[in-house]
Amino acid sequence: MAVQVWSVDPRTGKQRTGAGPDAGPVATEATSEQVDAAVRAAAAAVPALADRAARSRLLRGAARLLEESAEQVVATADAETALGTPRLTGELARTAFQLRTFADVVDEGAFLDVIIDHPDPDAKPIPRPDLRRYKIPLGVVAVYAASNFPLAFSVPGGDTASALAAGCPVVVKAHPDHPATSELCAGLLRRAAVEAGLPEDTVVLVHGFQAGVDLVRHPLVSAAGFTGSIPGGRALFDAAAARPRPIPFHGELGSLNPVVVTEAAAAERAEQIGTGLAGSFTLGTGQFCTKPGLVLAPSGADGDRLVAALTGAAQQAPAGVLLDSRMRDNFVKGAAARAALPGVTVPVAAGAAEADEQQVRAGYLLVDAADLAEEGALDLLLEECFGPLTVVVRYDGAASRDAVLDRLPGNLTATAHLGAAEGAAADGPAAQLLRRLTALAGRVLVNGWPTGVAVTGAQHHGGPYPATTSTSTSVGATAIERWLRPVAYQDTPPALLPPELRDGNPLGVPRRVDGVASA
Amino acid sequence: MAVQVWSVDPRTGKQRTGAGPDAGPVATEATSEQVDAAVRAAAAAVPALADRAARSRLLRGAARLLEESAEQVVATADAETALGTPRLTGELARTAFQLRTFADVVDEGAFLDVIIDHPDPDAKPIPRPDLRRYKIPLGVVAVYAASNFPLAFSVPGGDTASALAAGCPVVVKAHPDHPATSELCAGLLRRAAVEAGLPEDTVVLVHGFQAGVDLVRHPLVSAAGFTGSIPGGRALFDAAAARPRPIPFHGELGSLNPVVVTEAAAAERAEQIGTGLAGSFTLGTGQFCTKPGLVLAPSGADGDRLVAALTGAAQQAPAGVLLDSRMRDNFVKGAAARAALPGVTVPVAAGAAEADEQQVRAGYLLVDAADLAEEGALDLLLEECFGPLTVVVRYDGAASRDAVLDRLPGNLTATAHLGAAEGAAADGPAAQLLRRLTALAGRVLVNGWPTGVAVTGAQHHGGPYPATTSTSTSVGATAIERWLRPVAYQDTPPALLPPELRDGNPLGVPRRVDGVASA
Repeated sequence: MAVQVWSVDPRTGKQRTGAGPDAGPVATEATSEQVDAAVRAAAAAVPALADRAARSRLLRGAARLLEESAEQVVATADAETALGTPRLTGELARTAFQLRTFADVVDEGAFLDVIIDHPDPDAKPIPRPDLRRYKIPLGVVAVYAASNFPLAFSVPGGDTASALAAGCPVVVKAHPDHPATSELCAGLLRRAAVEAGLPEDTVVLVHGFQAGVDLVRHPLVSAAGFTGSIPGGRALFDAAAARPRPIPFHGELGSLNPVVVTEAAAAERAEQIGTGLAGSFTLGTGQFCTKPGLVLAPSGADGDRLVAALTGAAQQAPAGVLLDSRMRDNFVKGAAARAALPGVTVPVAAGAAEADEQQVRAGYLLVDAADLAEEGALDLLLEECFGPLTVVVRYDGAASRDAVLDRLPGNLTATAHLGAAEGAAADGPAAQLLRRLTALAGRVLVNGWPTGVAVTGAQHHGGPYPATTSTSTSVGATAIERWLRPVAYQDTPPALLPPELRDGNPLGVPRRVDGVASA
Repeated sequence: MAVQVWSVDPRTGKQRTGAGPDAGPVATEATSEQVDAAVRAAAAAVPALADRAARSRLLRGAARLLEESAEQVVATADAETALGTPRLTGELARTAFQLRTFADVVDEGAFLDVIIDHPDPDAKPIPRPDLRRYKIPLGVVAVYAASNFPLAFSVPGGDTASALAAGCPVVVKAHPDHPATSELCAGLLRRAAVEAGLPEDTVVLVHGFQAGVDLVRHPLVSAAGFTGSIPGGRALFDAAAARPRPIPFHGELGSLNPVVVTEAAAAERAEQIGTGLAGSFTLGTGQFCTKPGLVLAPSGADGDRLVAALTGAAQQAPAGVLLDSRMRDNFVKGAAARAALPGVTVPVAAGAAEADEQQVRAGYLLVDAADLAEEGALDLLLEECFGPLTVVVRYDGAASRDAVLDRLPGNLTATAHLGAAEGAAADGPAAQLLRRLTALAGRVLVNGWPTGVAVTGAQHHGGPYPATTSTSTSVGATAIERWLRPVAYQDTPPALLPPELRDGNPLGVPRRVDGVASA
């Protein structure tokens, strides 16, 4: 029997039914046979996607269709996620921007990483043949959509956009928190494919937990992208590695995103940092991968001022609805378990909101750095708690602070708040702190907040495990590298070379020829 | 009790004893404690290796020391591997060249992949912060040395050179076929490190099977490079993936290296191709990762001429000694098992040489493409047989040929021999053939032989699994990418930025600034 997939309103916890184009049962879970058919259909699109111009058209068309359907997409996503119209309107704009950014990447062609070495019969120690290398698409990519970004990290999101840009068809496994939005967006992407002259099945959508497992094991799937929890991501990573033919699994799993406030920074801006922190950890009801989850603040009067400001701001944060009831239950339990740990105090208690059982309140915990310096019961504080909770660790001097930093797992981001003078000394304590944070994360920020991830060439959204399962990024132009592999042609007649590799550079792509970069 | 490691002379099958600096027991197998100490010692070298100039000095110094010790290194390697003085002299030159190539890569700095995006407060959909990205070393790299290249793919080889270039200390697990050569080369590398002002433990050597297993599981090991067999490589890959913190495992495991000879090529150059093939598959007694192990030759008179030429040349190939007795036994058994398969004929029988039980003779097998078109007993022919054996598959038309190609696993190389006119048609059958070969391999050659791997920027020595366990290369300038991860700095004061990322480009590294490449 086909298992129905329903859209659930997190504001009520109930299945959405009744009138409207996106209410009622949305789809059915894909059987193993349906997953197989989906992957085969996507694989059949590989040859058509070799046309770079068509890929660019597809990405630009998808951005346009998304914008044209913005009202319906945002309304549907809001009904399923409770993230709110302003945030989702912004996320849609960001998603369209991201699709166009990857179209620009495709058009420019630098991602092809063309390297040409002409033959050299006099080369030492042996004569050198003609060798020309560029990158080709891996094949069908499985994308596992995230709960917390129904657009930017889901069906039309960065994994899909970068895979299509690379020339890889995509089978997306929808997140159960927003199946109707997923169906809507998949329809837009499929329409964009057809309008670009590509097969409709360039993008295929499947629903269901088992479908996700089947997908990563399918022989014709060549790589996977994932954004989600550590247990879910690790299970799929393990399945990808255990295949007869292992495949790259680019998973973004979890991150504490530590923040260090130096004594000088606290002395200069305690209140500003305290309120800024409250704004960042409660943003989107704390449902960001980059939420600052562990904050090292100095002991003493300046740190006290910071904490007081944080308390005031956190108390004023409005209650909010989490993405689904399982997350809400996990958050309430997780916050309570952390609050009950020995030595932990609770200036503002996070947990279930009194007025509305669907809502949660933001809060934070306080603990001494000395209590975290060694393995023990408090290690739970070193695990991400998804939702509006953060942990402030009071430290007493650099050694006390570094003892905690040394115990942290890998992170997407690490942030330093520095005093004005600290930023000017290249070899001072702030430089040492930044080196330590660099070892911990894929993005290091100074005097900012990690929530908010710019889509740009220099972005890196990834980090040491468990932040990501690979050294790659899932945001920014270089995210395309995940879906490519190099191939070199040796002594190949010009007519048989891909045009990107021919002398004269007929397609005008950036190349490195005989060691010299050229446009 | 410490387990002694002996050097064995494959020409006699006996342990080398007696006088001389490299005869007798060479070392002991590393215990788990010794592996731990080796990794910790290497990890302590990480900060010093941040100095790019020192890395360059180390690599150039290692090349010079290797050349200065050439006589002793070549003699020792020959005594342990029987590869012969000419080949090993060439391999040493190639290895020194490779070390200097990576010094050039370090000096140039393009591998840092610097991308700088200046802030843009007017950017849509949201203001853009200052973001500057480059790549940093992963940490300690474990290198598993290959049997068949005691220098170029072993202690001073490409994995070590590229890891050091990236700034990663290296712990090498010696191959048991050349422990004395490994000790000698490790000593040279450690001396080069000290002379470059770096810690001696920038390079550490360990021996023993269990040491290799311990190494890939060690918490402070951050990546691994491997060249060897499918079973051994897969076991280590699985161990790397199963760690609490999984690490990248770049393994080169096995490859058939298919060759397709078109009807036109056979008509034009049957004899030349037949003798060329014999030269390639018997080179180095067939002990190359790129040995052509499966050759599709047309049926008919031209193919018959090719086969006749191959027979003549293969019969004249001198008997040779394989690297060790286990390999010789496996080769003799593997050749016999393949020769006994139904439908297989044996124009020149490979196997044990009559005159000398340490030696083997080269040979080849013939089979009809139709017999390989479907899964069955003959699938053994689709597995690599390490040593001087190849399989010639006679095909009858493109469909018959492609049915066999479609059944092949991933390869390091795939080669087409084309007729003169075929190379001129961009959309003809040869182009289709090259597309098919591209899907099968990481390097595609026309009218050449895959043995011989140029060390250059455009080289790609890797391919779909099982050729490699990742999308990377182990030869050529881009091999350095395996040991790096990106990190982005957001809104970081200039004094705290790495100099590579500062405005004005004080170190003069190639960069991409606001979307424009600059030198």
